[in-house]
Amino acid sequence: MASEFELIRRHFTRPTRHTDLAGGDDCALVRPRPGMQLAVSTDMLVAGTHFLPETDPESLGWKSLAVNLSDLAAMGAEPRWVVLAAALPAADETWVAAFARGFFACADAFDVDVIGGDTTRGPLNLTPTVFGEVPLGQALTRAGARAGDELWVSGRPGLAGLGLAHLRGAVLKREAVAPCLEALQRPQPRVALGLRLRGLASAAIDVSDGLLGDLGHVLERSGLGATVDEAALPGDARAATEDSTLAAACLLGGGDDYELLFCAPPAARAPLAALSRELGVPLTPIGMMDARPGLRLRRADGRLEDASPRGFDHFT
Amino acid sequence: MASEFELIRRHFTRPTRHTDLAGGDDCALVRPRPGMQLAVSTDMLVAGTHFLPETDPESLGWKSLAVNLSDLAAMGAEPRWVVLAAALPAADETWVAAFARGFFACADAFDVDVIGGDTTRGPLNLTPTVFGEVPLGQALTRAGARAGDELWVSGRPGLAGLGLAHLRGAVLKREAVAPCLEALQRPQPRVALGLRLRGLASAAIDVSDGLLGDLGHVLERSGLGATVDEAALPGDARAATEDSTLAAACLLGGGDDYELLFCAPPAARAPLAALSRELGVPLTPIGMMDARPGLRLRRADGRLEDASPRGFDHFT
Repeated sequence: MASEFELIRRHFTRPTRHTDLAGGDDCALVRPRPGMQLAVSTDMLVAGTHFLPETDPESLGWKSLAVNLSDLAAMGAEPRWVVLAAALPAADETWVAAFARGFFACADAFDVDVIGGDTTRGPLNLTPTVFGEVPLGQALTRAGARAGDELWVSGRPGLAGLGLAHLRGAVLKREAVAPCLEALQRPQPRVALGLRLRGLASAAIDVSDGLLGDLGHVLERSGLGATVDEAALPGDARAATEDSTLAAACLLGGGDDYELLFCAPPAARAPLAALSRELGVPLTPIGMMDARPGLRLRRADGRLEDASPRGFDHFT
Repeated sequence: MASEFELIRRHFTRPTRHTDLAGGDDCALVRPRPGMQLAVSTDMLVAGTHFLPETDPESLGWKSLAVNLSDLAAMGAEPRWVVLAAALPAADETWVAAFARGFFACADAFDVDVIGGDTTRGPLNLTPTVFGEVPLGQALTRAGARAGDELWVSGRPGLAGLGLAHLRGAVLKREAVAPCLEALQRPQPRVALGLRLRGLASAAIDVSDGLLGDLGHVLERSGLGATVDEAALPGDARAATEDSTLAAACLLGGGDDYELLFCAPPAARAPLAALSRELGVPLTPIGMMDARPGLRLRRADGRLEDASPRGFDHFT
C-alpha cells in the first residue's frame, strides 16, 4: 500500500503558476502583489456534518475548495493560493485520486495554485485555507451597508437545500432534480461577480448557512435592520417542488447555496442589471436595509413577520 | 447551552496588533510588509493520531499552535498570523476556554495575531494555518545543503518521545519525567533560532517526525547523503532512562521534538557556538553532509550502519 507521502506526492503535485515555493518544504512561499491586501479564509468540511459520508469524492474535491473560494468572492478578493489539510480514514488511492481530480478542477477553473498542506490519518476531514488578493481598501466587508441600500442575492438560492432534501427522500419535480443536485454537489463560487461588485456593493456575504441567517450577520456588523420581500426572491426553489413549505424553508434557511447576498445603493440598479447580463448570473433585489433594527420578512400575502436570524449552527 | 458562534466569540475574540481585519467577516485581511515573502504552513492535529484524547486542553492549545510555528521557524520566517479551524465533538465551554488559554499563550509568546477560523461539530480535530514573513530570498529551505556542510540539531531531541513513552508506561528516571512531559506537551518552537540561522545555515527542517526521517527529507531535496555520528547526539534522552534501546529509538526516530535540524558550512562553527550561548539553546554538531547518496549512522561502537529514512508515516 502506498504511504501517505507517496499518495500525496502522486496526486497533489502539479505545477504552480504564481508561487515561489510550493510543497515539499516546511512552508510554502508566496508573494502578494504590491498594493494588495491578503484575504484569508478557512472552512472545515467534516463527514456527517457537512456532507454525507458516501458523497462522490470528485464532487467533494470540487466542493471543498469551492466553498472556501466563495468566502474570497464575498470579500471581492481574487483567489490565488490554497493549502489543504486532510484527515483520511485510510490511504485509499482510488478515493484520493478522484478527490484530487475534483479539487484541481476547481483550482484550475479559478487559477488557484495548490501550494501545500498536510495529510494524516483520522476521521474524514477536509480543511482548505485559501488566500486571495484585493486592492487595499476595496474589500467588501459585512460592515459597510447603509440604511436605504437595496438588498440583492445572486443566482438561484434554495436549490442546494432542495438537492440535500432530495437525497434524504423529498420529492422534487423531475426536471429539477439535476440542477438541485448540481447546486449541492458542484457549487459555483461567485468569484467573477465578487470582483465586479467592488465599488458597486456596500457590503457582501456568501450564503453558506441560509439566507436569513447570513443576512443576520450583515445586520449585526452593519448595525442596521432589513426587510426582505419573500415574493421578490428568485422563484427557482418554489418551481422545483410541489412542497411549498420545503421550498420556503430551503429558500430562506437552506445552507450550501454559496450565492452572494449584498447591499447596494439604489443608484447601482442599472449597473447591476448590466452586470447580471454580462456575467449570465441572475441578480435579484429582494429587500431593503433599514435604520430600524431587526429582520422583517414580508410574506407573499403581505403580512410582515419578525424573522430572527437563525444561522445553521452545528451546535444547536 | 452556548452556541458555536457564542463560544467562539467569547473565547477567541482578542485584540490584534498587526492585522487589518480579523474575525467576524468572510475573510480576514492582512498586509505583508514590503519586500517580504509570505511563508505558509498548516498542520492538522487529530485526537488519537497526534495526541491522546484525554490530553489537557490548555496544553493542547499551546501545542497545536507551537507545532505550526515550528514550521515557520524551520524556514527562518517571523510568525505573524494564524487562522484556526477546529472540529469539536461537543460545545464544551470549559474545554474551549482552557484550549483558548493555551492557544493564546503561545500566540502572545510569539506575537502572532489570531485572525479567524472556523468551528464545527465533528471528531476532535485542530487545524491551525500559520503565516510568517521572511525577507525575499532569505528563507531556509530543505534544498540548500551542500556536501561538506556540518549537520546540527538544536535542543534535547528525544525527550518528547520519552514523554509519550512514559504516558504509555515506560519507566524514566524520576528527575527526567517532568522535562520529558514538558517537551511533549509544551514544545518550544525555535523561532528566535530560525530567524538567526538566516545567512548561517544552508538548509533547515524541524524535527516533527523523527531525526533520521526528517533528515531524509533534507537529503532528498538537497540531492545529498549524510553521516550521523550517534555518539555526538545530545545525551539528554540517554540520561533520562535506563532503557538504552528506548532512548536510542526516541533520539533517532521519536517525533514531536520540534527542534531544528540544520546544515551549515564548517566556518559557521564559531558564530553558532556564540548564538547557542546568546539564545540559551544547545546547538550540537551531529554529522556531515556527503556527496555520496544515502544516510549512514555511525554507532557508538564505531560500526557504520545504513539508516534508511523512516518518517513517522501515519498510514504505514
